[in-house]
Amino acid sequence: MKVVYLTEPGNMAIEEEDIPELRKGCVLVKIEYNGICGSDVHFYKDGRVGDCVLREPFVLGHEVAGTVTEAADDVNGLKPGDRVALEPGYGCGRCEYCKTGRYNLCPDVKFFAAPPVRGALQEYVVHPADMCFRLPDHVSTMEGALVEPLAVGLHAASLGEVTLGQSVAILGAGCIGLVTMLAARARGAADIVVVDLHEKRLEYARKMGASHTIRADGTDVAARVEEILGGGPDVVFETAGSPVTIAQTAYIAKRGGTVVLVGMASQSEVNYNFFQLMEKEAVVKCVFRYRNLYPKAIAAIASGSINVRQIVTHEFELEEAGRAFETVVRDAQDVVKGMIRM
Amino acid sequence: MKVVYLTEPGNMAIEEEDIPELRKGCVLVKIEYNGICGSDVHFYKDGRVGDCVLREPFVLGHEVAGTVTEAADDVNGLKPGDRVALEPGYGCGRCEYCKTGRYNLCPDVKFFAAPPVRGALQEYVVHPADMCFRLPDHVSTMEGALVEPLAVGLHAASLGEVTLGQSVAILGAGCIGLVTMLAARARGAADIVVVDLHEKRLEYARKMGASHTIRADGTDVAARVEEILGGGPDVVFETAGSPVTIAQTAYIAKRGGTVVLVGMASQSEVNYNFFQLMEKEAVVKCVFRYRNLYPKAIAAIASGSINVRQIVTHEFELEEAGRAFETVVRDAQDVVKGMIRM
Amino acid sequence: MKVVYLTEPGNMAIEEEDIPELRKGCVLVKIEYNGICGSDVHFYKDGRVGDCVLREPFVLGHEVAGTVTEAADDVNGLKPGDRVALEPGYGCGRCEYCKTGRYNLCPDVKFFAAPPVRGALQEYVVHPADMCFRLPDHVSTMEGALVEPLAVGLHAASLGEVTLGQSVAILGAGCIGLVTMLAARARGAADIVVVDLHEKRLEYARKMGASHTIRADGTDVAARVEEILGGGPDVVFETAGSPVTIAQTAYIAKRGGTVVLVGMASQSEVNYNFFQLMEKEAVVKCVFRYRNLYPKAIAAIASGSINVRQIVTHEFELEEAGRAFETVVRDAQDVVKGMIRM
Amino acid sequence: MKVVYLTEPGNMAIEEEDIPELRKGCVLVKIEYNGICGSDVHFYKDGRVGDCVLREPFVLGHEVAGTVTEAADDVNGLKPGDRVALEPGYGCGRCEYCKTGRYNLCPDVKFFAAPPVRGALQEYVVHPADMCFRLPDHVSTMEGALVEPLAVGLHAASLGEVTLGQSVAILGAGCIGLVTMLAARARGAADIVVVDLHEKRLEYARKMGASHTIRADGTDVAARVEEILGGGPDVVFETAGSPVTIAQTAYIAKRGGTVVLVGMASQSEVNYNFFQLMEKEAVVKCVFRYRNLYPKAIAAIASGSINVRQIVTHEFELEEAGRAFETVVRDAQDVVKGMIRM
Repeated sequence: MKVVYLTEPGNMAIEEEDIPELRKGCVLVKIEYNGICGSDVHFYKDGRVGDCVLREPFVLGHEVAGTVTEAADDVNGLKPGDRVALEPGYGCGRCEYCKTGRYNLCPDVKFFAAPPVRGALQEYVVHPADMCFRLPDHVSTMEGALVEPLAVGLHAASLGEVTLGQSVAILGAGCIGLVTMLAARARGAADIVVVDLHEKRLEYARKMGASHTIRADGTDVAARVEEILGGGPDVVFETAGSPVTIAQTAYIAKRGGTVVLVGMASQSEVNYNFFQLMEKEAVVKCVFRYRNLYPKAIAAIASGSINVRQIVTHEFELEEAGRAFETVVRDAQDVVKGMIRM
Repeated sequence: MKVVYLTEPGNMAIEEEDIPELRKGCVLVKIEYNGICGSDVHFYKDGRVGDCVLREPFVLGHEVAGTVTEAADDVNGLKPGDRVALEPGYGCGRCEYCKTGRYNLCPDVKFFAAPPVRGALQEYVVHPADMCFRLPDHVSTMEGALVEPLAVGLHAASLGEVTLGQSVAILGAGCIGLVTMLAARARGAADIVVVDLHEKRLEYARKMGASHTIRADGTDVAARVEEILGGGPDVVFETAGSPVTIAQTAYIAKRGGTVVLVGMASQSEVNYNFFQLMEKEAVVKCVFRYRNLYPKAIAAIASGSINVRQIVTHEFELEEAGRAFETVVRDAQDVVKGMIRM
Repeated sequence: MKVVYLTEPGNMAIEEEDIPELRKGCVLVKIEYNGICGSDVHFYKDGRVGDCVLREPFVLGHEVAGTVTEAADDVNGLKPGDRVALEPGYGCGRCEYCKTGRYNLCPDVKFFAAPPVRGALQEYVVHPADMCFRLPDHVSTMEGALVEPLAVGLHAASLGEVTLGQSVAILGAGCIGLVTMLAARARGAADIVVVDLHEKRLEYARKMGASHTIRADGTDVAARVEEILGGGPDVVFETAGSPVTIAQTAYIAKRGGTVVLVGMASQSEVNYNFFQLMEKEAVVKCVFRYRNLYPKAIAAIASGSINVRQIVTHEFELEEAGRAFETVVRDAQDVVKGMIRM
Repeated sequence: MKVVYLTEPGNMAIEEEDIPELRKGCVLVKIEYNGICGSDVHFYKDGRVGDCVLREPFVLGHEVAGTVTEAADDVNGLKPGDRVALEPGYGCGRCEYCKTGRYNLCPDVKFFAAPPVRGALQEYVVHPADMCFRLPDHVSTMEGALVEPLAVGLHAASLGEVTLGQSVAILGAGCIGLVTMLAARARGAADIVVVDLHEKRLEYARKMGASHTIRADGTDVAARVEEILGGGPDVVFETAGSPVTIAQTAYIAKRGGTVVLVGMASQSEVNYNFFQLMEKEAVVKCVFRYRNLYPKAIAAIASGSINVRQIVTHEFELEEAGRAFETVVRDAQDVVKGMIRM
């Protein structure tokens, strides 16, 4: 099978390897689509994400779906030919987080392309059967691969407890901002204000369902949001991860409202006005990946509540993996989601 | 102004009266639409609802919207010309229920057409300003009047914590069944199975968004629901209020799932299999009217999440009030919601 | 090692067997205490519990604690000499219930003495290390064994969301009623009314912390509870599992209050007045065993919040296992908890 | 009656005034105890709290209890002679916060000694009857006055969802830190670590129920807490309001844990490491006063769950009001709570 290696920052190489061996409780899946995620891009550009430094050739990729080609003897419920989305992370099953259903917080979670666990940018992977979710006939494997970024948005909207008729503000209109928007909309949010620095991204947001957009440069965002909504938003989502937008959340939050931090903050500190939060008795929640959302995400796509296909702006073939990463880095403002067809 | 009285069971009479006097904190509203509710019909047919017996001419009606014609001096936020939906019930403001935000449970709640409080089937009413909710330009007063039945469905879906991608079963496809369905759909429910005895009602359900319908006569409903969904529904809503359907909920409920009782049960007891519930650790919740939902309901209508207009099957003029009630009683199976234009 | 078999209803026999072999992820535990549970008694008396019929000699027992004598190579955090309480049930780790932290609802849960899984009334058992919870120095293994019944009460109080300053009513003052009372008290319940038919049991309740007790024979329990509390209780716990007490919950429940069904109902139906519940918008929750409570239970015992030792009314030696069961059956009213010292 | 005025920073004067006139829905209460709160002290020292500047003589005091001497005609449930605790703040009853039970967030809340609303440091006050809570015979009016600061701790513990068997860390052992500790303990927290700079305060904490204390100077508090608890605390309460302790919460918080900010932050910004929070998917909640807690607080005191009396370190007579404030300012480290007997 073909495997795409990041050999060093900025360089991808395709190698031939043996198809991995099936294990107990697992299925062998022929991967059909692989989405390129921001963390993949960080590894590609810098050879690192935060403290995690690559020191040897590494396989990226964790947004994947494909077709089961073989199932271990002890697997029920999946058989060759089933098309599945692969949830990339699974816990140890024994710690307090796993036992209480928060396996995304398991200290020993295994997650595609989170070193030392290898990613899925290769033709075949072996994966636990219970982390492979069957796609209904009318949901494509491309949509299946998109469940991964979508799940982040769903988890954010779920933690934010977005509910019917509410208003939300979303800071950042990149991929995570947009899937958060889709999730909020699908849960019934009535007014959705999206804020970004780039007009192109706001255009995407408006096309996909934003009620209002705000170009951020120089604007008093909190004042503008309040003006548009006639009050604060029930929930503010921060998806850009920048100190500037994180700091804004204290001012944008509604009295009694909720802030959800989705965009991963950097290690450096943010100057934050907690007095603003406290006077309003606001709540801040943080998103780390997601949990238990694949079945619901697939059902929401299948029922038409969410059109996740529309976030794909760029498609590439496996052979073009190098060009795919180059493009995604070069045209960052234009790319919402690039997909590699395996 | 014209006032429609139920003079005795089966007889309505229109009388002329003075327009009621404005009170502190209130607005005077010219009513434009008045929906006919099941409880109105009970009073019309039987002169009673449960223990509550009418002994003198009475004004029905609590699903209303109209235009403000006058506002008391101490009222902010509403002025003549504002179109509003009237939430029919408000609490004492001082009991433990009011203070904890559950004013629908206030023992001293005042509610239109709940004796001794008179209803709103008349040209003008005086109502507390904070219980009159302004309608956006593109939401009609007919839709405003429909917020009342819709709010019951929204409260049911909210108590049931219906969320994106879930499956639900709804027993009963009358008005309350259908608004519960609209609410569940708008919160992102993916699979909605509706069960009723009458094909006509199931037709309505399919048109308005049911994924599946089951004609109940003689069917093992629990088995059929499970077959359709490939498992139990996350939430079961009982909206018919019959001992048969209430009893079914114990069997239909999913392991770890929720039953929401929306249709008011009669005083007589139901033979219920609690063993079924206990083995599944299921939860049963009850709906008594609604609370704090008008703003969200209006926002959901305004944003297009809910098309409440489609539940209206019959329209009448004020002068036809008598015929309206006759029709609603006679053609019970065909009527979802009858509206009286004032 | 010695193993206690129920050979046929009413007859226990002690046999010698090999110590079971250690498995991956497991520890070998020398059992020190074994509590006798109501379900053990049902098997002893009737050879069955519900649909579950014993057809061959069987080992009972699931309330156990002891000392680790050996740990598998892959086990961290436990070593020989550690004293542990054994949580008797664990799930498959792969189903929706396990992944969402509700492993007590796993359809494939393995639970001591729930056929075909053998119980723990024997000198040694092999058990998954992550289901063995270390006891602090000042918590005895007898208390460790009592964590099991206590966990049922803790789960009931947790589902009932009993909180500081609340009032609760508990129907039934058997072992489960009393541990529910301890749990409610430890969560800060201020007024606790306990109801039972037997004065002896009410005496136990008063000693262990009931604020009020009601002898149930012939009394209008709902009226009496309301009189004592000056209103309905925030939470009603049904722990007797009888149709009479289950039916009472609808009348005792407070407006906006919660009913928790803890005592397992029989398969036959209960005549239940749902109208009472609906008018009050009350909630009914069901308890099926417990989950994720062992660490908290042990911490609560260790901190002195709960004195679980006081529920033990009878103690026996392993050799007296037969007499232990006879006594528990014969003196049912006097026994709260019988313990077998291994 | 006597009224204590803060005439200018540092100076109190007692004046004679007419007893205020009874209003509809209100009772006249002869105040018996008045606690001195940190906000009173700020006004006394600086003539201001945050943006709120005193420009004329003002009456402080909001922690009060006393005896009803007269009740308005429309008041039920209270009569002369009833001893009551006065909840100092009440909302407008009409805004979204009041209607949803969060009246502490009402933008028009009226709160004793929050200008322009006058405080209760005088012999008589007129107060809404539904905000006066009757004390049981064995709860003193001094305890009644202490319900106010206690309610802050109860609200903090409630927002933090502290539950049986949990571990908590409390930063700051002033009055608010200590009532938070009492509340956490009464909800069943098993391990309570209290951190402060002052040994004297830690002594108080240990006497009132802290399991562990940490003297903060120079210590790596996060590391020390983790060492003591063998992991992070389920909930971290910040009660000091200092930038240093607020910043610490990000490091002390447990994976999946909760931070509750109770001590009011100043307007200036805090350098906060959100990356720490995000990796752990922790939640931050803020406390603004409290709501709906007086009845529960009184029940908890009455049942013995909370001994609030022990926080009183200093008592004064009405005539000594000036000295009382001087003392509280001068001996800040030694004072937990000073009470003025009226």
